[in-house]
Formats: sequence, C-alpha cells, structure tokens
Amino acid sequence: MTRRKRAAPRFDYAAGFDRLVHEPARLSILTCLVTHPKGLRFVDLKRLCGLTDGNLSRHLQALEAATLIEISKDIERKRLQTRCRITAVGRRRHLEYIELLERVIRDSADSQPLDIRGPARLLSRG
Amino acid sequence: MTRRKRAAPRFDYAAGFDRLVHEPARLSILTCLVTHPKGLRFVDLKRLCGLTDGNLSRHLQALEAATLIEISKDIERKRLQTRCRITAVGRRRHLEYIELLERVIRDSADSQPLDIRGPARLLSRG
Repeated sequence: MTRRKRAAPRFDYAAGFDRLVHEPARLSILTCLVTHPKGLRFVDLKRLCGLTDGNLSRHLQALEAATLIEISKDIERKRLQTRCRITAVGRRRHLEYIELLERVIRDSADSQPLDIRGPARLLSRG
Repeated sequence: MTRRKRAAPRFDYAAGFDRLVHEPARLSILTCLVTHPKGLRFVDLKRLCGLTDGNLSRHLQALEAATLIEISKDIERKRLQTRCRITAVGRRRHLEYIELLERVIRDSADSQPLDIRGPARLLSRG
C-alpha cells in the first residue's frame, strides 16, 4: 500500500468544483443570468430563481464581490430598479462549472451505460 | 410587486439539490461506486477519489448512515479489508442528482446555444 498520491485521480471532483458557483442558489442565479445576457431586474431574478429578497441579496453581494456579476441602479418607469448582469468572468466561471458537470455525467455513464441511462427518468418535475 | 410565491420557478435548483450528494467529495465517492457495482476496497476508493483517509472515512460514515452505501469487512489475502458498495437507495439518489445536473446543463444552453456551446472547451483537465 503506497501512500504517495498519484496524479489526477479519476473521480476527484472536489479540487475542480468552484465552490462559489457550486452553491445551489448561486448556480440558479448565474444560470438564469447566463441565459439573459441583457441582465434582469432584481424582482424578475427573484421570481425566476425562487429566492427570497434576503437570500437573493446575500448571494448577489457575494457574486458581485467576486466580479461574477455587476449590479446597477436604473430608473425604469420612474422607479429605481436594481438590475443584475453577468460579467465575462462570471460567464467563464459558469461555463467551466458546466464542463465539470458534464464530466460527472460522463463518468456516471461509464462502464454501465444501460443501467444508468435506461431507467433513469426517475425525476418527475412537472 | 406580489410576494406570493409562484409554482416551480424556472431556475430554482436549491430545492431540488440533494445536499448529501451535492458535496463534491461525496459526489466523487458515489459516482465511483456507481461505476463499480461490485464494490471497492477502501484503499482503491481513496486512490480513485483522491481523498485522504480521514476525509474518506468521514464521508463514508455519512453516506452509510443515510443508507446510500454499505460497508463490510472482508478477509482478502489474509488481511481484513474494508469494502464499500452502493445500495439501491444510493443508486437512485445519485441518478436523481445526475438528472438535475442534466437540467442545469439544458437550462444553460437555452436561449444562447452558440454562445454556450461554441467556445465552451475552456477546461483543460489532462
């Protein structure tokens, strides 16, 4: 039994997962913003991600601090609106994360494609 | 601005993510065991997942307590070996999780397929 660490273990995801993006609520926000390149108002983002005001605010602050998104205040219909947009950095980090998800899915399908892909439709989300 | 929560927000992943499986090291362990249905020795699992003894032990305990895996002690070549196998419950939970990952990937590709799929190969993981 050798204790030496071999290079690139096959199923080592822990090192590759971007913890900032991995948090489910933040993954919701980023995926939502990636598909709305012109940005979204706070209220619409909140609705689309199913988050509360407080939760959304907290995660937006974390994402803005890491420069994954930018937040601006616009006047729309005489009301001050908070608008969120994804940045180039955010788009890249999200894309890298999605690539890792694809790797996990490929790894899961390996060596037993029938078993994993056959009766897979277990989720019945409306 | 209505505060009533509408049904099934489009990008609401937080509710669907299985926190037990979502933890990167546990996702490594489960994906590894899913592709090795006969089970794996502790030492092999450790090597394939790139985890330390302590980390692997801790996560295996959590997964066993939730009945996602089972741990047995076998005698192999005159030595006591710890062997881990995924259970039917573990297989189902992992599969449901993979389904959610597929949903995130589909959602990410929505509305800007070229942008997300074109220059996507940003990861260069050996």
